[in-house]
Amino acid sequence: MKLNQGVEWALHTCLNLGWIEEAGDVGAAPTARLADFYDLPPAYLNKQLQALVREGILSSTPGPRGGFRLARRLEDITVLDVVVAIEGRAGAFDCAQILRSGPGGDAGTNYRESCLISQTMTKADLAWRKELASETLADIRERVVSLYPDTPSSTRSWFLNTKH
Amino acid sequence: MKLNQGVEWALHTCLNLGWIEEAGDVGAAPTARLADFYDLPPAYLNKQLQALVREGILSSTPGPRGGFRLARRLEDITVLDVVVAIEGRAGAFDCAQILRSGPGGDAGTNYRESCLISQTMTKADLAWRKELASETLADIRERVVSLYPDTPSSTRSWFLNTKH
Repeated sequence: MKLNQGVEWALHTCLNLGWIEEAGDVGAAPTARLADFYDLPPAYLNKQLQALVREGILSSTPGPRGGFRLARRLEDITVLDVVVAIEGRAGAFDCAQILRSGPGGDAGTNYRESCLISQTMTKADLAWRKELASETLADIRERVVSLYPDTPSSTRSWFLNTKH
Repeated sequence: MKLNQGVEWALHTCLNLGWIEEAGDVGAAPTARLADFYDLPPAYLNKQLQALVREGILSSTPGPRGGFRLARRLEDITVLDVVVAIEGRAGAFDCAQILRSGPGGDAGTNYRESCLISQTMTKADLAWRKELASETLADIRERVVSLYPDTPSSTRSWFLNTKH
């Protein structure tokens, strides 16, 4: 069971956009520049960021001067929002309802709901989601600023100074 | 992010072994018979059950009369034990430490520990594990018996009556 690498990329990119945009309007941030931060493959990062656009987390501007901006404040983006944008809404445990093929199995029963193993796995999945939903990107930003106070300005400077 | 199908197979098979063995010694249960319960592919189920043997959850007997037995009581097997046997111990979030490649990144820093995004993802993973560790297979067995009281005897009968 592995989360897509894009989850890590997307979370870091959203925080970076937060710091870039704090500087005032610097326009949409091009994918190539956002990828440069961590030497990520731009085309694959673009695919992940488009998934965030579809969930209303980022907005994108097409064209040669185009790129990405935050579509809402970091206070209004939970970690779960980003994970769901990349991974989809399905739980980690994909109950195949094997009880249906078992002795006494009933084609009309929804074993995803009635099977007690499925219920336990779903409960754990909800605990994971609840934890991720309890953190916004603003919470993480705040802890970064508290521990690494230079990060916002150095991120912004790096982005602006190497832009052209 | 998906768990291996083998997690569902392994959890159901452990419960079935519990019911089969309650009847007194019926010998090791052959993989082919355990697979028959749910029309599962025997070779692939065998692979999953061997993973449970490596974690000390089942024991296996080789040879033509061979098969699997529980190596410990259902009270002493948590759902997490089974999940870890199949999926391994790694967390769902596989931090690639992209901060190391970023502006100011330090080759000597362990960003799996210091990165605040990584910390959040690890915290959610621990919540998931804690939930799965809080349930033993005996807990699930008890709820099954309470809701579906015929399950133990019908499982056992099906196994014994179609054995030969």
